[in-house]
Amino acid sequence: MIPLQLQPESHVPLYMQIRDQLRALVHTGELRPGDRIPASRELATQLGVHRTTVANAYAELESEGLIQGHVGRGTFILEGAQPARISPPPPTALGTSNGGVRWESLFADERGEESLSRLCPAGPAAPMSFLSARPAAEHFPLEDFRACCNAVLRSEGARILQLGTSDGYAPLKKALVYWLRGEGLSVKEEQLLITAGCQQSLDLLCKAFLRPGDAVAMENPAYPGTIAIFAGARVRCLGVGVHGRANGSEAGLDLHALESVLMQNRVKLIIVNPDFQNPTGTTMTSAARRRLLEIAARYQVPVVEDHLTGRLRFRGAKVPSLKALDRHGVVIQIDSFSKVAFPGLRVGWVAGPENVIDRLRLVKQATDLHTDQLAQATMAEFVKRGLLGRHLARMRDIYARRLAALEEALKQHMPEGVQWVSPEGGLCLWLSLPPGFDASELLIHTRDRGVVFGPGRYFYFQSPQPNTLRLSFGDLDERKIARGMAILGEQLRIEMRKRQRGARRELQSAVALV
Amino acid sequence: MIPLQLQPESHVPLYMQIRDQLRALVHTGELRPGDRIPASRELATQLGVHRTTVANAYAELESEGLIQGHVGRGTFILEGAQPARISPPPPTALGTSNGGVRWESLFADERGEESLSRLCPAGPAAPMSFLSARPAAEHFPLEDFRACCNAVLRSEGARILQLGTSDGYAPLKKALVYWLRGEGLSVKEEQLLITAGCQQSLDLLCKAFLRPGDAVAMENPAYPGTIAIFAGARVRCLGVGVHGRANGSEAGLDLHALESVLMQNRVKLIIVNPDFQNPTGTTMTSAARRRLLEIAARYQVPVVEDHLTGRLRFRGAKVPSLKALDRHGVVIQIDSFSKVAFPGLRVGWVAGPENVIDRLRLVKQATDLHTDQLAQATMAEFVKRGLLGRHLARMRDIYARRLAALEEALKQHMPEGVQWVSPEGGLCLWLSLPPGFDASELLIHTRDRGVVFGPGRYFYFQSPQPNTLRLSFGDLDERKIARGMAILGEQLRIEMRKRQRGARRELQSAVALV
Repeated sequence: MIPLQLQPESHVPLYMQIRDQLRALVHTGELRPGDRIPASRELATQLGVHRTTVANAYAELESEGLIQGHVGRGTFILEGAQPARISPPPPTALGTSNGGVRWESLFADERGEESLSRLCPAGPAAPMSFLSARPAAEHFPLEDFRACCNAVLRSEGARILQLGTSDGYAPLKKALVYWLRGEGLSVKEEQLLITAGCQQSLDLLCKAFLRPGDAVAMENPAYPGTIAIFAGARVRCLGVGVHGRANGSEAGLDLHALESVLMQNRVKLIIVNPDFQNPTGTTMTSAARRRLLEIAARYQVPVVEDHLTGRLRFRGAKVPSLKALDRHGVVIQIDSFSKVAFPGLRVGWVAGPENVIDRLRLVKQATDLHTDQLAQATMAEFVKRGLLGRHLARMRDIYARRLAALEEALKQHMPEGVQWVSPEGGLCLWLSLPPGFDASELLIHTRDRGVVFGPGRYFYFQSPQPNTLRLSFGDLDERKIARGMAILGEQLRIEMRKRQRGARRELQSAVALV
Repeated sequence: MIPLQLQPESHVPLYMQIRDQLRALVHTGELRPGDRIPASRELATQLGVHRTTVANAYAELESEGLIQGHVGRGTFILEGAQPARISPPPPTALGTSNGGVRWESLFADERGEESLSRLCPAGPAAPMSFLSARPAAEHFPLEDFRACCNAVLRSEGARILQLGTSDGYAPLKKALVYWLRGEGLSVKEEQLLITAGCQQSLDLLCKAFLRPGDAVAMENPAYPGTIAIFAGARVRCLGVGVHGRANGSEAGLDLHALESVLMQNRVKLIIVNPDFQNPTGTTMTSAARRRLLEIAARYQVPVVEDHLTGRLRFRGAKVPSLKALDRHGVVIQIDSFSKVAFPGLRVGWVAGPENVIDRLRLVKQATDLHTDQLAQATMAEFVKRGLLGRHLARMRDIYARRLAALEEALKQHMPEGVQWVSPEGGLCLWLSLPPGFDASELLIHTRDRGVVFGPGRYFYFQSPQPNTLRLSFGDLDERKIARGMAILGEQLRIEMRKRQRGARRELQSAVALV
């Protein structure tokens, strides 16, 4: 019996766990060239997983040249599959060897989970990528941008290129104060810190507020980047469910669950994405937002509001941000140009109480000194000239059409049993396959046909629901969206039929054994 | 007796400690309006510090309106000096109050030391700032830069502004590989990670390698940004002395001290700045570098080489970098465009073994996704067109002249007992005042006359030598350098005379008491 230990709670899909553990057994020499490994059905029974899961693991190992199947004889470890990645312990004195340092043993953490970007390599391999919630690059107003860039380089070039201040480039802070006021949010320059985007804002907040072992409450599922930051800092993430259906005040974060988390734990921050939540697409109502703020104030726990896609509403009535509703001074809002304009630039900001901004400024200084000033100055100009407002209005229409096309294609191509949440905005849609399906296994097949997406596993840090997946639609035109969903639907039907045949066959062999 | 507790080992100058603790006593109500505080000489005796130190603390509190001296009567706490900064604990339910969250109690750390930037506010107040090791902005080749920026925006604008990859913008990595090869360093693209500068490179390395409580060995004194990163991550910094004089192999890092630190501690990284060390300006010889690498390999401890100013050599023969000399594969080199070109852009890189870069890429992804691509693409073009090499050659001449002017002015204006290390390159010079002087107290006086510099305290994390200071000369022309040193010398003489008079007076009063 092969000693494999699966962790169903892990972010790592089961087939990857099987693949990686078999590979490790080869590398440590416990499995040797010529050894026979169990048939996929046999191993599946041993591990209590679906046979397809083992078959997928074997398929990947076969493509790596580690194993080979022979019809009628079984599957064997190949010659040449010797330990390759893990080198033997180096001699104690290194003077003569050039083996050097055993880096893997020096890293602060275990080699965490396989990153999503590795599962879905970028590039021409995936012409229909629903993976990343990116804006549509083909609609970037390049000439406007270049004009802004030239204007600031001409008028303030030396200042831009010289070392700047950690709180941000002053003209950008001024432009933001004015712009945010136009949106109904009143902040002063001292209440803003410019960052390199929301990912960095979360990193800075983590450093400013959290020590290892501290706890944060956040939506489960959530944006994987948020999970990665807190996991990296050894902070405990306490999950609060997110409701898909908007029945009254219950859309978005489950406030009952939140309150029970706050009651039972010393929570230091609540992280929440109230508009078109990433990944579920749900939006909290005004009433729910007010209740959340009241709960946060009662427990004296700051709320970090992710407002990244808040401006991308295509349907329904506008709901004020938590920051705009905040009467208790508990909200720190993080925001960015990355979804509404240019993610390649890395400019975002934090809006919060002055003493929080003051602390974050010191943390920012010790993290990367300050944010790139060419990007800051150009965006300041872009905002001041009214170009951001214009671009945003245009993009809202484009994304609304793409979302409509996506929902239309889903209705047309998805087999029965597939459900989704219809978002009012944002850049992604959350889909649930019939129970028992693992979206990361479906991805293996669709990516060969040019379609990739975000398997649900990567968004959960507790109780993963592997049958879920996220479809990002911002960076694909309607034609590709329709074609991608046709392929996804078709592949899903194939997998459903395979599964039915498998069930029938298992039934037959069970009968034969009697 | 006023309950003050001074920490001589702290980065915070003693006069600031006294000032802050007195302020706190007022705010907590232990000192009330009308209370008399001890005369400066009395308190100095009680605390075992020089009288000027207390006088400086009192001067700052007086300018804040917290205390007032009355000739012949003494010094008193002023009316209106009530608790202002620390608000009373809020009610448990916040529904009615708008006091909000007690943020200070929520931060992960105590309000660390007073930051240097606060001591020396930027702006027109300091026309002769020797504080920051910045390049000379007036010599930035702005038209060349703008041409590069326009070229890349025209040819690859949409790609630049779209979300990028965490390891860096491919054209920049390519350009760097070629450029570094020209300098004698052979690296592959997979051995490079683009970062937002050296400060971030250190942050990423810290996250990748260190857990709270881990130890690093580094030069003491060191760059304050490095100290801040490790302090923030609760890493122990073990100091290794730096020798100023280049007698044989003994210049730079004290290798005997390093070895004894490695022998007695489980050190995870050695951080070293072998060229024109910041702040001491010392340079390790080739022989010392080879010995360092041999020691690191023997103890299996990676060496992080800060190569930030390595290209700014004005005198003496070139010494190969640790990375270039590395035969054991123990060196990770961090480097950047910030000192040789444009610090406002925030583009740097890490060169190291592939598995280290691979790990750092994941850490980078979870920190800020990737580095700004407009800056990366423009710098790639700037390098490819040969503009960086040309700019660098020009700046070397300019900085060499500035350094010569600085040393000339020092010889002319410094009183006896002042010593300095003559650097072979870089952007700063390390000065020692006569023993007993505190450079941060001297700074109080010179900053009023437009001259600021970096007091030594901020560079030490162990055994501070308060009589040291760092003079950065890159961003000041020869005239300002000469004028600044004249003021510094003059003020130093004034302080020396004050001190002599004080000593005489103390001698007299001692005599009178007999």
